[in-house]
Amino acid sequence: MEQIGNNKCFGGFQQRFRFESKTLSSTTTFSIYLPPGASADAPVPVIYWLSGLTCTDENFVIKAGAQQYAAAHGVAVVAPDTSPRGDNVPSDPDGGWDIGLGAGYYVDATQEPWRQHYQMYSFITKELPPLIEREFPVTNKKAIMGHSMGGHGALTIALKNPGAYTSVSALAPICAPSQTQRGIRALSLYLGDDQSAWQEYDTCALVAKGENKISLLVDQGTADNFMAERLQPEKLQQACEQHQHPLDLRMREDYDHSYFFVASFIGEHVAYHAEHLKA
Amino acid sequence: MEQIGNNKCFGGFQQRFRFESKTLSSTTTFSIYLPPGASADAPVPVIYWLSGLTCTDENFVIKAGAQQYAAAHGVAVVAPDTSPRGDNVPSDPDGGWDIGLGAGYYVDATQEPWRQHYQMYSFITKELPPLIEREFPVTNKKAIMGHSMGGHGALTIALKNPGAYTSVSALAPICAPSQTQRGIRALSLYLGDDQSAWQEYDTCALVAKGENKISLLVDQGTADNFMAERLQPEKLQQACEQHQHPLDLRMREDYDHSYFFVASFIGEHVAYHAEHLKA
Repeated sequence: MEQIGNNKCFGGFQQRFRFESKTLSSTTTFSIYLPPGASADAPVPVIYWLSGLTCTDENFVIKAGAQQYAAAHGVAVVAPDTSPRGDNVPSDPDGGWDIGLGAGYYVDATQEPWRQHYQMYSFITKELPPLIEREFPVTNKKAIMGHSMGGHGALTIALKNPGAYTSVSALAPICAPSQTQRGIRALSLYLGDDQSAWQEYDTCALVAKGENKISLLVDQGTADNFMAERLQPEKLQQACEQHQHPLDLRMREDYDHSYFFVASFIGEHVAYHAEHLKA
Repeated sequence: MEQIGNNKCFGGFQQRFRFESKTLSSTTTFSIYLPPGASADAPVPVIYWLSGLTCTDENFVIKAGAQQYAAAHGVAVVAPDTSPRGDNVPSDPDGGWDIGLGAGYYVDATQEPWRQHYQMYSFITKELPPLIEREFPVTNKKAIMGHSMGGHGALTIALKNPGAYTSVSALAPICAPSQTQRGIRALSLYLGDDQSAWQEYDTCALVAKGENKISLLVDQGTADNFMAERLQPEKLQQACEQHQHPLDLRMREDYDHSYFFVASFIGEHVAYHAEHLKA
């Protein structure tokens, strides 16, 4: 593992690493914020952050301003990349940004040419946490949160892994990718035409399945251009009402999809997870 | 004036505008954060932020996280670009980043080919504030702060304009450009070989001149790679001691030159200016 960044920030350190991922069959990078005082004698719990389409591990680190809250609450924050990377990793054949590089959708692809590298679900759930827990002064208590495609990732991963995360939250998540034009394109390319495979990576479908009743905390801006076509928080609200799934959906007036929105509310999300991680 | 950005952020609005500057003989952009509640009936004071080498008006807005503090204290923050821009604006003949585009040094150039466009001192002191005060719900109370080359800009502009700014502060400023290799190159290209012209844009020289005793608040990271060769806070400390100029220089252990450093302390700077602006 190669360290490629280290900046003191709010008394702790914002660090960046590169390593060869077996799961992704590629090099990958991640960022980690270690709050002041984190040490082998005083390990801290971890919040995993999953970013949205087009992002690397750096967007959140640079734009969201989460470090101050992580410092105040004594939690680490890990931000992985959003897809495998490298010259040998295939991307969108149409040159778009909805599938391929920066658009791993946090699934394990079963179709060619994606299958070899696009295993983001297994990477986030199986490879990354043991690595983090081995290499850094952290406990094995984990929470997960994300934005947009990363909000979809956080919600589906928490729902599919009961007990693994103390809490989950999302900002402007894609709530029902198997019901949107762009989501269907990505899921069918990654997973094939069998729609039952898509349901395993669809928050609304997982809520309907009802196997994990973990509370969902979601913020959504009302001026978000992607809300109607791609995000569809109303479908999440309906699914949670119908299946008595605990949801705290907070509509935020006039906020859009940008990191200015994320920055405005990330403090509340970090506080929410810190409370659960330390309970 | 054309609006090119508007994002709700911490209850206020982060906005961006483009207009034709007479002073710069070029198009220019600036960003402004308006805190919640700012209105014609309740105008707010303004902090001007000057950025460092290579930046546009956007770096600070995206990376520093100042909006939350501006919102809490009820102040606007204006971030201009760091130089004129456009196809007709000359830049570094050697392709560097120390002079030309992104490197206006907040001087009024007197030499060719810079003279026509590189009038950043007059732009910041004479053209921008009246425009801001005419177009936005703000008062005429002003403070000024900046980072690196922008810290140099903030300190020199405040020192040269007694009474114009209620307070001034800087993060990792260039303190004595007329005594550094890179500063001398920029100042001699913009201002010619007469060193007395350089002294008008050199914080240490202006402190020695002693015409304005405004207090200087400065933060400097001890792990800043540019400190010894370009920034030289020890020269500022010596000048202020020698000439009994009030200085609060705070050395910040292990912090570097990045926006992770700026983000860590910008809250204290905004609070400092807000206190003076509202006194």
